[in-house]
Amino acid sequence: MKGTMSDVKLEECREHIRSQLDNVVDFWLKYSHDTVDGGFFTCLGRDGSVYDKLKYVWLQGRQVWMYCRLYRTMDRFHKPEILEAAKAGGEFLRKFARVSRASGEWKCAFCLTSDGKAVKVQRTLFSECFYIMAMDELSRVTGDKDMQLEAEQMMEQLIHWVRVDSSGLGRPQLPGDVPTNSMAVPMMLLCLVQQLTEGQGQDVVQKYKELEQWCVQQILHHVQRAGTAILENVSVEGTELPGCSGRLQNPGHALEAGWFLLQYSAERGDEKIQETAISKFMELPYQCGWDKKHGGLFYFLDVDGHCPTQLEWSMKLWWPHCEALIAFLMAYSQTKKPELLERFFEVYDYTFTHFPDAQSGEWFGYLTQEGKVALDFIGGPFKGKIIRCTHLARYEKVIAPLAMNLPNDQIHLAVGFLFTSHIHI
Amino acid sequence: MKGTMSDVKLEECREHIRSQLDNVVDFWLKYSHDTVDGGFFTCLGRDGSVYDKLKYVWLQGRQVWMYCRLYRTMDRFHKPEILEAAKAGGEFLRKFARVSRASGEWKCAFCLTSDGKAVKVQRTLFSECFYIMAMDELSRVTGDKDMQLEAEQMMEQLIHWVRVDSSGLGRPQLPGDVPTNSMAVPMMLLCLVQQLTEGQGQDVVQKYKELEQWCVQQILHHVQRAGTAILENVSVEGTELPGCSGRLQNPGHALEAGWFLLQYSAERGDEKIQETAISKFMELPYQCGWDKKHGGLFYFLDVDGHCPTQLEWSMKLWWPHCEALIAFLMAYSQTKKPELLERFFEVYDYTFTHFPDAQSGEWFGYLTQEGKVALDFIGGPFKGKIIRCTHLARYEKVIAPLAMNLPNDQIHLAVGFLFTSHIHI
Repeated sequence: MKGTMSDVKLEECREHIRSQLDNVVDFWLKYSHDTVDGGFFTCLGRDGSVYDKLKYVWLQGRQVWMYCRLYRTMDRFHKPEILEAAKAGGEFLRKFARVSRASGEWKCAFCLTSDGKAVKVQRTLFSECFYIMAMDELSRVTGDKDMQLEAEQMMEQLIHWVRVDSSGLGRPQLPGDVPTNSMAVPMMLLCLVQQLTEGQGQDVVQKYKELEQWCVQQILHHVQRAGTAILENVSVEGTELPGCSGRLQNPGHALEAGWFLLQYSAERGDEKIQETAISKFMELPYQCGWDKKHGGLFYFLDVDGHCPTQLEWSMKLWWPHCEALIAFLMAYSQTKKPELLERFFEVYDYTFTHFPDAQSGEWFGYLTQEGKVALDFIGGPFKGKIIRCTHLARYEKVIAPLAMNLPNDQIHLAVGFLFTSHIHI
Repeated sequence: MKGTMSDVKLEECREHIRSQLDNVVDFWLKYSHDTVDGGFFTCLGRDGSVYDKLKYVWLQGRQVWMYCRLYRTMDRFHKPEILEAAKAGGEFLRKFARVSRASGEWKCAFCLTSDGKAVKVQRTLFSECFYIMAMDELSRVTGDKDMQLEAEQMMEQLIHWVRVDSSGLGRPQLPGDVPTNSMAVPMMLLCLVQQLTEGQGQDVVQKYKELEQWCVQQILHHVQRAGTAILENVSVEGTELPGCSGRLQNPGHALEAGWFLLQYSAERGDEKIQETAISKFMELPYQCGWDKKHGGLFYFLDVDGHCPTQLEWSMKLWWPHCEALIAFLMAYSQTKKPELLERFFEVYDYTFTHFPDAQSGEWFGYLTQEGKVALDFIGGPFKGKIIRCTHLARYEKVIAPLAMNLPNDQIHLAVGFLFTSHIHI
């Protein structure tokens, strides 16, 4: 392993990522805790000041999850202050996130006031997903069985919304609203299955086995156009949808799905899925999504080359780059193909020269196409948009937070750290 | 009036705007009509090709309104093909826009399939607003009394949602969701009042008089911070709200409200409102909203100088510039203050050197902060986001489409034309 240029560079990456991760965790420990009302502030400026006190449930859930994961799996974060912060966040969530505490009513708010009053409810299931992530992970640290049961019960509700009847989400059933398989949904469910089954007995694994396979199939349906493109939205039958929505590509999402599949394949030794994950969900989005002129990954693209209608389509966001780092490093660690390591280095160089903010020790989240900082805050209502939260259970002795999910998701960084420190490449 | 530099430049503006308006109308007449299913396509590329067939109700309504307004008030557009297109659009709307045809159920869809099936319903009232605009204006051309009655009935529903009970819009009532006075709502209602009362007898004017005054008061509540800022969202009591939402500024919206107020003041000879409209709703947003470095108006700002959380905050959109052109020219025509004409010329120069697309004869809608084209289509799902649709009834003989509202709103251009051709400045 020693002696090559790549090894030296990987070791440098590891060191750099380790120090960045420390900075990022420090920033959130120092500035994000609401010691009055509980929970976490997430709208933070570069100096740590809170510019908005609203509490977004996605981000509350992720921060709880992240703290627990750090505490549980990495020695240097196994500190009482991190555990206490996670517990306080969990308490806030349990007290306020669900719109109704009535038995069998599981809908969670999207956004709360700082003292926990519901401000907005989304007609999607993602708040509930992050609630489950938080509860499951926290229950592993605290041993709270009620909490784990709550996570499992909410999971049942999610499965019902996705596979049986979505009317409980509050969207009116409209004749022109074609049922759609959006990448985010099976990806998120797969992530939840991996969370809930991690380290559990065969009974729990069996319970979710069929769902896990269904999720993988649903993700694979996004390979379209005779295997030449990953599309973000497809029909429930797995065919292409018309219009902008049907042609939409989200390279960061595709790369994220890629490493979810790679994990799945590694756990089963499924080489076919591994090959698909790399050639379809990594190579294709990289080829279409990497900006040849300015570097970095576009946020959205249209498979036919039309201009996407999202105003932010050409911006460079932190999270697709984190997904790409994870994806290519994981793919390299499984296959040892040098071109995958090259990809990793290319994404690494762009990422670490553009996103970190020396002043705060944290990262910027949003750059223009040309790579200039477009929004200069550290945490925002949506910074932390994509969650991935699975682990490296099969990799040697470490059960590691593959992707970190602090409010701003930037401890995705930890991924690189874990790979380079714990995995023999 | 003759002989000065300003007069010469205004005349040049008028000529240029006239030819641009002709190009724009030609483009939409040629490419946007769906001759199979009725209604209008609005997602159009530079070559006029339809890149998405979804039909957005806002834009359907605006196009009907615009065609009728052109037909009714400008000789060179008084052509059968424009009238027929307006009628076809109106028929499509009446047939498909309302989610339920049941008596007393007025909610309209936000988006329809090309053959009229509802795809999405928003929990706001703007689809209904544009439906009313279309029906009222079309009934003036066709003399259809049923249509006018429908517009008035839907207007009653809107007033009920805004002033009595909003639960019919479908938003859950949440304890943390503080009732908010958002600029768009009183502005839109004021616009509707002006539409519905135009040229009508005293009974109709009286019917809406109290509502009109209420709208003006609601708009004036957005003057905050001891008269130094216009804020986009305030409490229903007229005080500042906390957080990002409370600090949000939308210069284009403020300018738009400004010329609505100016119209209102002109009809009443109310000099106090005129002074407020100019000093608060035009000068303030211009001062804070104009990009001193690159030119053009920002889309969003934060009154305390924080970075807005909207990813597109620094982009330059066509519509705020159209609002600014209308506002400053109207203010100048009422006051003859030369600094207002200077503002007009400044906005004019930026607008006409940046937005027009020579290839299509139409305009681009979205530029980067630096003024580069960011999205290269001509019409999109949201291009046409802001409507204003009142008139110049008090100005000489012309009842003119003050702001045009084709799907892309770019026939805002007509405004300048009307001012410079019909008004003695």
